[in-house]
Amino acid sequence: MRQQLEALRRRMLEEKIGAYLIMTDDFHGSEYVGDYFKCREYISGFTGSAGTLLVMKEQAGLWTDGRYFLQAEAQLAGSGITLYRSGQPGVPSVEEFLERELQPGETLGFDGRCVMASYARKIRAALAGRQITVCGDLDLAGDVWADRPQLSREPAWILGERYAGAGIREKIAEVRRVMKQRGADWFLLASLEDICWLLNVRGNDVACTPVVLSYLMMSRDEVRWYVQEEALTDKVRAYLNDAAVAVRDYRQIYGDVSRLPAGARLLYDENHVNEALVSRIPDGAQPLDGENPTLLLKAVKNPVEVENERTAHIRDGVAVTKFIYWLKHQTGREAITERSAALRLEELRKEQKDYIGPSFYPILAYGEHGAIVHYCADEQSDIPLKPEGFLLADTGGHYKEGTTDITRTIALGAITEEQKEMYTMVLRGHIRLADAVFLRGATGMSLDVLARMPLWEKGLDYNHGTGHGVGYLLSVHEGPNSFRYRPASVRGSDCVMEEGMITSDEPGIYLEGRFGVRLENLLVCTRKRENSYGIFLGFEPLTMVPFEQEAIIWEKLSEQEIRWLNAYHAKVYETISPYLDKEEREWLRKETEAYGGR
Amino acid sequence: MRQQLEALRRRMLEEKIGAYLIMTDDFHGSEYVGDYFKCREYISGFTGSAGTLLVMKEQAGLWTDGRYFLQAEAQLAGSGITLYRSGQPGVPSVEEFLERELQPGETLGFDGRCVMASYARKIRAALAGRQITVCGDLDLAGDVWADRPQLSREPAWILGERYAGAGIREKIAEVRRVMKQRGADWFLLASLEDICWLLNVRGNDVACTPVVLSYLMMSRDEVRWYVQEEALTDKVRAYLNDAAVAVRDYRQIYGDVSRLPAGARLLYDENHVNEALVSRIPDGAQPLDGENPTLLLKAVKNPVEVENERTAHIRDGVAVTKFIYWLKHQTGREAITERSAALRLEELRKEQKDYIGPSFYPILAYGEHGAIVHYCADEQSDIPLKPEGFLLADTGGHYKEGTTDITRTIALGAITEEQKEMYTMVLRGHIRLADAVFLRGATGMSLDVLARMPLWEKGLDYNHGTGHGVGYLLSVHEGPNSFRYRPASVRGSDCVMEEGMITSDEPGIYLEGRFGVRLENLLVCTRKRENSYGIFLGFEPLTMVPFEQEAIIWEKLSEQEIRWLNAYHAKVYETISPYLDKEEREWLRKETEAYGGR
Repeated sequence: MRQQLEALRRRMLEEKIGAYLIMTDDFHGSEYVGDYFKCREYISGFTGSAGTLLVMKEQAGLWTDGRYFLQAEAQLAGSGITLYRSGQPGVPSVEEFLERELQPGETLGFDGRCVMASYARKIRAALAGRQITVCGDLDLAGDVWADRPQLSREPAWILGERYAGAGIREKIAEVRRVMKQRGADWFLLASLEDICWLLNVRGNDVACTPVVLSYLMMSRDEVRWYVQEEALTDKVRAYLNDAAVAVRDYRQIYGDVSRLPAGARLLYDENHVNEALVSRIPDGAQPLDGENPTLLLKAVKNPVEVENERTAHIRDGVAVTKFIYWLKHQTGREAITERSAALRLEELRKEQKDYIGPSFYPILAYGEHGAIVHYCADEQSDIPLKPEGFLLADTGGHYKEGTTDITRTIALGAITEEQKEMYTMVLRGHIRLADAVFLRGATGMSLDVLARMPLWEKGLDYNHGTGHGVGYLLSVHEGPNSFRYRPASVRGSDCVMEEGMITSDEPGIYLEGRFGVRLENLLVCTRKRENSYGIFLGFEPLTMVPFEQEAIIWEKLSEQEIRWLNAYHAKVYETISPYLDKEEREWLRKETEAYGGR
Repeated sequence: MRQQLEALRRRMLEEKIGAYLIMTDDFHGSEYVGDYFKCREYISGFTGSAGTLLVMKEQAGLWTDGRYFLQAEAQLAGSGITLYRSGQPGVPSVEEFLERELQPGETLGFDGRCVMASYARKIRAALAGRQITVCGDLDLAGDVWADRPQLSREPAWILGERYAGAGIREKIAEVRRVMKQRGADWFLLASLEDICWLLNVRGNDVACTPVVLSYLMMSRDEVRWYVQEEALTDKVRAYLNDAAVAVRDYRQIYGDVSRLPAGARLLYDENHVNEALVSRIPDGAQPLDGENPTLLLKAVKNPVEVENERTAHIRDGVAVTKFIYWLKHQTGREAITERSAALRLEELRKEQKDYIGPSFYPILAYGEHGAIVHYCADEQSDIPLKPEGFLLADTGGHYKEGTTDITRTIALGAITEEQKEMYTMVLRGHIRLADAVFLRGATGMSLDVLARMPLWEKGLDYNHGTGHGVGYLLSVHEGPNSFRYRPASVRGSDCVMEEGMITSDEPGIYLEGRFGVRLENLLVCTRKRENSYGIFLGFEPLTMVPFEQEAIIWEKLSEQEIRWLNAYHAKVYETISPYLDKEEREWLRKETEAYGGR
């Protein structure tokens, strides 16, 4: 039995708590979380990026998804915690489990700061009328975690207008316009990407996401930023002062929400504000649950941002192209593993101007590892690369000029006919989506099928979305835009594809135990033409890295697909070659050679 | 000033009503309505199929959509009624208009039986807090309509199990299963197609829709059908008695709803139940607004229904093929107009076994009329057909074996290169959708783009959905399945495409003042294969009528499109030719000849 679990149970007994719930979220619902927030990992020993721990007197369970079944099984062995494989037939959800196992008179506890309000509502609904007390202000895991790391408080810095393309006052005015439309007196914002976008600040408090731990609350004539004092330099203070943004202590938001005046109409998105904040809204105030006004404003990149993104993608393209050249020439000559290759790519990115850091944990997956969609090499799994087969490399970086996310599947030597066929099929899907022309009004859900059709026709599929929105030096996974074919219940996910949105195009194919192919460019949505039918939109690839000539069966491409690919490769050569040395350039020339005379 | 309008205003004065609203709906929200329900037409003189009339003391307005702007303008001239062109910039909606024009202390009146509950709620919300009284039980138009036709009460008849494929008891049991899942004690159903589907009865009370004016209310152990006594034969009474369905008077539903026991949980769909019914739900009862359990059950056709639909489509295919042969050989030889051609087609359908009647008002649109999406030839607009150019024919029929809806664009003689190009483009879109293979989980919204892409790539579009669901001897426009690319707010419209659903595939192109092309088959969704990725679905065309050889530029079709079209034409010949005479058969052989040796 894991001793951290036993310690938690003792605290539960003291507090008379029958069940204690620990999610993976930080106070802001961030995708990645800082070390301070790793309570679930501390108590359970499970280190995956997604999972929910429920501890009761006699039993404890951890819920996680298919990516982590093997890892969780290993890490939970002997801990006294049962693994619940989410989504598998017959496995109850956490809510269903609670509904079944909690007895009348018992109390469910959790730290409401780490549970989003919408999920807490779901739990309360599941337990309603069962005489169960729900207590949302208990950080029992924190109580027993003696050497808990402190909350990150890295310095915030200002992202100048030449990068952001719009000033803080302009953005605040835009948000106020939306607040007025929705009849809101106050707007409460807790998601870090939205706050940093609005204030044109960045930081370093969350892994892979250059944001500042903070909250924001604004009215029609006031903006308050709740942030740790240590994060603020004099320069940043002066900047905020100049923009009429008041600074308050990070923790003060809870008290301020509870003191909102009677009748105040408070706008917030219950999916992105934690339960502890929402529970403090006074009875007299009027909550307006709705999409964050910042969501769409942030997703539609302005012309300066788009132009900057082009620059960032040239730099990133140079690094990745050099990386592929190096891989194809050195594999078999020097000792390279998945992890050492990742380090090499990181070095090449670091050589680029204004590089800040990785935008997510890099996936370098060789051979059969390529079939594991979210593979991440660790000491145990790391394997040497050989001059044969596919290496799947899904990586990305943050630059001052924007954020990249690229996947290439690289032939390190001889590849099979089947590998070529799969590669070509995925590439055709990628191109069909990238080459789409559509009337404004179409959504990502109406376009996704273009990428899947070449696979579906052969009875194949990839079990993930075709693409996600990408933030500008914020989260690499950003809503509301995406490409997927199933209806999602996520707020805003039926949004129309707009000029300026940046979305990834990343179909794939995964043959378990054998190999995987994924091909990903970022696409910016652009205007193609306007006539009496409306505005026709399309995409322009931002990513500038060649596809794998050796893996393409050109005869299987349609004329239109060939035209697209030839034009793309010409653009890649034109853009990237000036930054390469002579050997690299000569190699790139061959890699980007146009097919046929068509 | 129209005298019917003046009479209505006098009644309004007597009742102290400041504004009176007349919609187009019958008591059941049917797509077409019987003569009894044409109050809006009686008061305003406007005969279009869609429109809302609002009469106030000093002003009156009629709202209708783009299909009817010209017609409404002509019919409203001198009536004292202003035309409001819905959807045009700057034109207020009815609710916005009411909000702006009604003064505190005034009363808005309408007949709540002809206003769906969801729309009434919208109106009440728009007027909330404005000290305006809403009075929903006034049939003032009926009061002044001296020679109002009586409510239709045509005989109901039983659709045997060999047609319906499932018995009434089985269907009732299925609905009860859903009621139980949703925690409903009672289920209130007012949409006529759903009631007739559930009871396996048909009738003749609504134009183009073989249904019976009635309501239905059922509990877990009781089913009550509220229907006019005159509609019931002894045979039908015995059938209902045998199925334990109690018969009550049509009007008694209102009293029965008001007497629901305290605590009863009543399920209904507020989009398909009128305001007068919902307003009678007693305070003690618990309304559960939600999708009708019958909606999906009715949309997914059972194997017997699908097989019957194939039969119906063979008969219909014979009639339409003979019609095309006749048109192509007689145009220019005898006097044919749009309206006389429609009569000829109706005659040909009547020759077919088990034909019941048209499934909608036929659209036969010659030349530039083809560019008017919802054209319906009347005495004024009817024009003679000449042996040149396109005739667009969108028609359909009801058979005991099912319902058809087909559009062909027929070359009556020489056609231009541009007409061929447009035809070919629309045909390519039609084929791509018909030939799609997709994982179960995809929706009509994720597939629509396949039909549009050939047009979008050329900067063209059609301003309507690509397809709608089709009922089995019920409404030819049936939800929830459809093909469209814009998100719709209609309940259930994000439903997954299921095996057995029947949906039309009807892309088009409309060049104003010149010509139009639309090509429509009905597609039944079928299973293509199943593997570890899931169940792959696709479509099988039910419609069996050749496309226009003279209008197809085969060189513009992809190999896959040619394969589909050759196979389709082979099937059409094989299926239809046995029912043709020698000349027709020889002609069909040429029309369905395979292209190339590819």
